[in-house]
Amino acid sequence: MLKHAALIVCLTPVVLLAQGTIAGDWVLTQDVYGNPLHRKLTLTLDGESLSGTIGRQKIDGSVKGSTIRFTLKSGDAIDEFTGTISADGMAGTIVHSDKGEPSPQKPSWSAHRVPPRRTGPPQRHEFVPTAFHRQFSATNPPVLRIWPGDTVHTTTVDAGGSDEKGVTRVLGGNPETGPFFVETAMPGDVLVVRLNRVRLNRDWAISDDGIVGRALDPEFAVKMKDGFKNVRWHLDRQLGVARPENPPEHLKNFTLPIRPMLGCVAVAPGFGSAPPPTGDSGRFGGNMDFNEIVEGATVYLPVSQPGALLYVGDGHALQGDGELNGNALETSMEVEFTVDVIPNKPLMTPRVESSTHIMTVGLGGTLEDALRAATAGMGQWLEQDYNLTPSEIAMVLG
Amino acid sequence: MLKHAALIVCLTPVVLLAQGTIAGDWVLTQDVYGNPLHRKLTLTLDGESLSGTIGRQKIDGSVKGSTIRFTLKSGDAIDEFTGTISADGMAGTIVHSDKGEPSPQKPSWSAHRVPPRRTGPPQRHEFVPTAFHRQFSATNPPVLRIWPGDTVHTTTVDAGGSDEKGVTRVLGGNPETGPFFVETAMPGDVLVVRLNRVRLNRDWAISDDGIVGRALDPEFAVKMKDGFKNVRWHLDRQLGVARPENPPEHLKNFTLPIRPMLGCVAVAPGFGSAPPPTGDSGRFGGNMDFNEIVEGATVYLPVSQPGALLYVGDGHALQGDGELNGNALETSMEVEFTVDVIPNKPLMTPRVESSTHIMTVGLGGTLEDALRAATAGMGQWLEQDYNLTPSEIAMVLG
Repeated sequence: MLKHAALIVCLTPVVLLAQGTIAGDWVLTQDVYGNPLHRKLTLTLDGESLSGTIGRQKIDGSVKGSTIRFTLKSGDAIDEFTGTISADGMAGTIVHSDKGEPSPQKPSWSAHRVPPRRTGPPQRHEFVPTAFHRQFSATNPPVLRIWPGDTVHTTTVDAGGSDEKGVTRVLGGNPETGPFFVETAMPGDVLVVRLNRVRLNRDWAISDDGIVGRALDPEFAVKMKDGFKNVRWHLDRQLGVARPENPPEHLKNFTLPIRPMLGCVAVAPGFGSAPPPTGDSGRFGGNMDFNEIVEGATVYLPVSQPGALLYVGDGHALQGDGELNGNALETSMEVEFTVDVIPNKPLMTPRVESSTHIMTVGLGGTLEDALRAATAGMGQWLEQDYNLTPSEIAMVLG
Repeated sequence: MLKHAALIVCLTPVVLLAQGTIAGDWVLTQDVYGNPLHRKLTLTLDGESLSGTIGRQKIDGSVKGSTIRFTLKSGDAIDEFTGTISADGMAGTIVHSDKGEPSPQKPSWSAHRVPPRRTGPPQRHEFVPTAFHRQFSATNPPVLRIWPGDTVHTTTVDAGGSDEKGVTRVLGGNPETGPFFVETAMPGDVLVVRLNRVRLNRDWAISDDGIVGRALDPEFAVKMKDGFKNVRWHLDRQLGVARPENPPEHLKNFTLPIRPMLGCVAVAPGFGSAPPPTGDSGRFGGNMDFNEIVEGATVYLPVSQPGALLYVGDGHALQGDGELNGNALETSMEVEFTVDVIPNKPLMTPRVESSTHIMTVGLGGTLEDALRAATAGMGQWLEQDYNLTPSEIAMVLG
């Protein structure tokens, strides 16, 4: 009897967990050839009968005591999940059968709860970076865990790795501050990054006197052949202007209005992506070098990894459209941002919003591809948030 | 004696013409397989010895009485010009020898004087178009001959060929008003077109609800598959806004601020170009569809034909960046422009100048080509008019 009673005591919490709490959202992690694939698992329980979704695909299954089973069918492949529910979450094995493969694979899986949104007031974090990353990687350990609504005040080094005191802290190539782990952010969500402050924190910037090859036609290339010598600019924060420190003959009185921006705002890319260098860009954001990413702007990025893993860096005191010399006025920056998470929203492209404009950022191997991506992304935005039909989208975009 | 005296009388004007007036600028026209090739011929005379240029190539020769001879060497080819000077100009034959060709060709040539710039005040012309052209052609007869400094007030039909009264006057495809022959404009010069007025002259525009294929990715293309139905917009000139005449559900209260622009400003393209349709564009300008070509802007185009042959048309009440639906708010227009000619200035691209910006228009088969053309053109502008070195150009463009 005692033994039987003990069994009941032991079982009760598991049954309660299964019936009372396994319903809802989980982060499902599946091993794929040694790589973690993270997806959102949403479960509904009706007695012992289980239904739900992995990402946007349907599953069905059952729960008996602490044992959970569910099946995902996609195309010719079937994944049979079997696992055990414990206080820490769920874990088990998948039997993956595919018409094209002779014998099924048996990778492991696990799932853990996403914490509910924290109650209480948002927090402001003062973050002093001590290391900088040169890849937008999902495996860099988070430097800070923050919650939706929280604000982070921090600094970035310039594209060459120098900080606000001119000390080189890291090899160049857009080293990033972060990654910041945003609690509750899951694959399929959108990370919202409101840039409250994007300000200079030193009085000089580095640049050069070349034009990148892909912007040159042959005749102009010959003319520009001696380019890419370093140029230092003085940043006058009082007057809000930049001027060359040792101006050449015809630029003796040349000043430009400072308009600080971030060349890089990124989340960690999704499964299957080897970590891209911080000179790269894509649907995850990255080195977009878009000169509307300034103080006051809001950047929206599609989350692909639990916690989103936000990176910021590559500040420019000012940049033309397209960063024709590949090195706008590169400088360190004081940055303050507030994050938020929009659950379950597919984004095809990064989005940027100012007080006057909504903008999509098309990133592709050619300008044609980039145009198509930006146009499709804007179409999706107008459909999702403004409820426009395809016909109405075209009328507005024309 | 009388006979001899008569000979003297007869010779004198020719000698005077040769010595006193053949120096200076001429329009040289050469027959090339039945096509007129127009170039600027500049002559300097020292006794009987002749020097000068055709375009940017040097010539040398001689004048004896009414006979003129000069030689142009370019690469392996030699052109020997022989001709006769008369009160009407000069004309003769070329012997064209080329290493690669077995026997010399003997095309004809002629040259006539460019009139000196007119003295006296500029004129304002009220021009009512009666016909419209669908090709940017050098062979369309000029509708009006005007002088540098002159102003023309006229109208254009919409891209579909309808005028301010809604009467269809011509088949669609950006029919143009013009060509206007600008006296003194010669190949190698720049035509300056200041747009004093670009105003609506009716209260409706036509558009559509599609997105052009080259801006669509496959997913967006599927979504937009039912597009390109006609859409009529009401243009409220009092309030300065446009709205759909029969707004669909989500655009019931949708208005856009009117900003009239010209999709087409062009000169006739140069030698070797079969006349392009008025949907085309290039170094000669044409259907640039650039939404900064508005009232107050100045357009600079490289002249390739005597008189430049200016065309204007394709008015839009408003257009987004890139005319994504291929048919912005197409409407007829009231246009007033003032022309000027800058002699001897090579332009790689059309230029547009506003009160705040200088802009080059890159036109190419791909966006990459267009970017390279626009960048090179801007580099040339900064070099020509701002005396910047290549290094300084890069600093300013970055």
